[in-house]
Amino acid sequence: MKPLGPIPSGFTATDGELAIDGRKASDLVAEAGDTPLFVYSGGLLARRIADLRAAMPSRLRLHYAIKANPYAPLLEFMASRVDGFDVASGGELAMLEAAGIAADRVSFAGPGKRDRELECAISAGCTINLESEREARRALDIADRTGHRPRLAIRVNPSFELRGSGMKMGGGAKQFGIDEDRVPALGRDLIAAGAEWCGLHIFTGSQALDAEAIIETQANVLALADRLAGEIGEPLAKLNMGGGFGIPYFHGDAPLDIAAIGAALEERFASLPSSLSETELCIELGRYLVGEAGVYLTRIVDRKVSHGYTFLITDGGLHHQLAASGNFGTVVRRNYPLAIASRFDAGPEEEASVVGCLCTPLDRLADQAHLPRADVGDLIAVFCAGAYGATASPAQFLGQGPAREMLIGAAPR
Amino acid sequence: MKPLGPIPSGFTATDGELAIDGRKASDLVAEAGDTPLFVYSGGLLARRIADLRAAMPSRLRLHYAIKANPYAPLLEFMASRVDGFDVASGGELAMLEAAGIAADRVSFAGPGKRDRELECAISAGCTINLESEREARRALDIADRTGHRPRLAIRVNPSFELRGSGMKMGGGAKQFGIDEDRVPALGRDLIAAGAEWCGLHIFTGSQALDAEAIIETQANVLALADRLAGEIGEPLAKLNMGGGFGIPYFHGDAPLDIAAIGAALEERFASLPSSLSETELCIELGRYLVGEAGVYLTRIVDRKVSHGYTFLITDGGLHHQLAASGNFGTVVRRNYPLAIASRFDAGPEEEASVVGCLCTPLDRLADQAHLPRADVGDLIAVFCAGAYGATASPAQFLGQGPAREMLIGAAPR
Repeated sequence: MKPLGPIPSGFTATDGELAIDGRKASDLVAEAGDTPLFVYSGGLLARRIADLRAAMPSRLRLHYAIKANPYAPLLEFMASRVDGFDVASGGELAMLEAAGIAADRVSFAGPGKRDRELECAISAGCTINLESEREARRALDIADRTGHRPRLAIRVNPSFELRGSGMKMGGGAKQFGIDEDRVPALGRDLIAAGAEWCGLHIFTGSQALDAEAIIETQANVLALADRLAGEIGEPLAKLNMGGGFGIPYFHGDAPLDIAAIGAALEERFASLPSSLSETELCIELGRYLVGEAGVYLTRIVDRKVSHGYTFLITDGGLHHQLAASGNFGTVVRRNYPLAIASRFDAGPEEEASVVGCLCTPLDRLADQAHLPRADVGDLIAVFCAGAYGATASPAQFLGQGPAREMLIGAAPR
Repeated sequence: MKPLGPIPSGFTATDGELAIDGRKASDLVAEAGDTPLFVYSGGLLARRIADLRAAMPSRLRLHYAIKANPYAPLLEFMASRVDGFDVASGGELAMLEAAGIAADRVSFAGPGKRDRELECAISAGCTINLESEREARRALDIADRTGHRPRLAIRVNPSFELRGSGMKMGGGAKQFGIDEDRVPALGRDLIAAGAEWCGLHIFTGSQALDAEAIIETQANVLALADRLAGEIGEPLAKLNMGGGFGIPYFHGDAPLDIAAIGAALEERFASLPSSLSETELCIELGRYLVGEAGVYLTRIVDRKVSHGYTFLITDGGLHHQLAASGNFGTVVRRNYPLAIASRFDAGPEEEASVVGCLCTPLDRLADQAHLPRADVGDLIAVFCAGAYGATASPAQFLGQGPAREMLIGAAPR
């Protein structure tokens, strides 16, 4: 028997079934037309943002990194609820434009920006987080050629990293950003070239659950920004302090203590150096905003026993849930939170493995889990499916195609 | 420095550049319109099939498992060159139909077949490899309701596995197939129900490079098929002996000795038991047929140094090359074969890491490789890209979208 990850709070049972924003899973599937289906809860998204706003200093701006989930209705939902957006490609910028989100609220980071992406971003008025001196040169040239004043910031490769993060994106040699010691010269060059100087972007890692590690990193980020601003010789207009806020996926994981982070940040903000006193400060979150608000629903199409082990075979799988299957940046596979959605109030009765419909042994959603007895037709819910699900999985694999998606409980505001 | 995998044979240099079927990489990119680009060599595909036909007994039929690469022109290319096709979903069956390939050449395996997929397959006359007793019941019911005589085979979960295979799909508890001891009763039931009895499908694993292991497994498969045919009480019309033929991806891997496999099989076929003497025998290959014929071409958009390490940043990445990035069924990341396509005849000059354009540290195509000096504009080739590339990768991740694909050197026949 292997433990399942913890089910995020906010889900309830109605008539014995999983309910999302008060609506039964089976009703949601009926409305969508079929499984597999991603359901994103507007109620949980709104609550997450409200909790975060309450915990963080009011001065801190909140950005959504759309790489976590670029589903169009979700972008529209976010438009009035966050202060800015971060994209990682021209394709993501186009998605925001399609959702009616103005480019002056957007910043663009990513190590492999093509000329045409830079041109779109500069023309639209998006802030570009430069990843190298050469990219800076290309951006200035394109701006010159197209007659725009570019909004340029520098992505810093800091010498420190976010301790305990699932993905380290700072510390040592990295393809991201510009090494600390080369940032001041480039900053001065950009200002001298007449660009609109948009400050620094310092991203150190992601998916950390240890508040102390984030507090320490944020202190390091502010100190580094102060030092670099001094060496550049101008106060920073903007500082993107990165993200790194994790969510619990696995047995034993505890939610991040955002109150502690907010309190520490409040204290830092009370005594900022002059280089940062007027700076627009933001954090950039993807997974933390949307991950726990999403549920992946899939239906059992077969129940079989092999050599005494029970397999529940679903119509979903790793083509929509690559990370849950343990195949995306994972060393040791562990179970995500998962439940029998159609028997959500039942206690565990048997050990079973939940697998997808793909003809590969990699396609496993839960390994030897303790579950209520389920059979063909029952619905399975995989939780923490709001981030890095639909678009971070090989949807075309084995001819399957994408899952349905729906955002519910999203009152206009 | 970390070694690169071995470049498959059959590629040449023209004017210092990688040539595929005699055509320069830069010309192919120009024709396709842009990078990233998958190029599939018709010349290498044809050679692989010819070599295999020459090595194997003439009686052995050759099936293509399209999950490895369902690119439409490649399916059309294969139509006249292999004897049958294997699909793993209704979506794949539809792709074959679109390519003009008749369903009576197709068999359909996969643990999570939905009713509508069974109905399509039965109506079209495709052979269904049944994965459970319950699936058998559903297939018979659907055939009855729709007035078709279904073509049914049983996928066996053998008690042995393919030693040294990258993916074990037999031996112990599995979601695939029906445990050996329950096969005879089901076989008799299918025959009694009036289905067209299409025999057995015994798939034990994939990506094995050890000919002895495959020889041993094929002997076990034939022995098991004979025993099960005896218990069912009818000779087998067909036996799908599975696949498992691997290709070298990593430093130290050697090509599979197909001559040894063919010779051993020839010997077995000379003394088959009566239950198998009239049986249509086939092997089912995906990766082995198409993997080495494919090259992924991507262009360097930045070259940067961080803490003394050189990074070549490309316009491609794990969104097309998930397995090469080490994120698909991999425990320890190792380098695939990779080269600077635009400097294919140059010797190694420096250590560099080749990364993709995605804003994630997972996006690495080669780690600390010894390469000719390359710069912005140079083309990178990732080899062994013909199988489990385009469709087995999260193409929509970070708003990137799919790569271009082209099949070249495919003379009609």
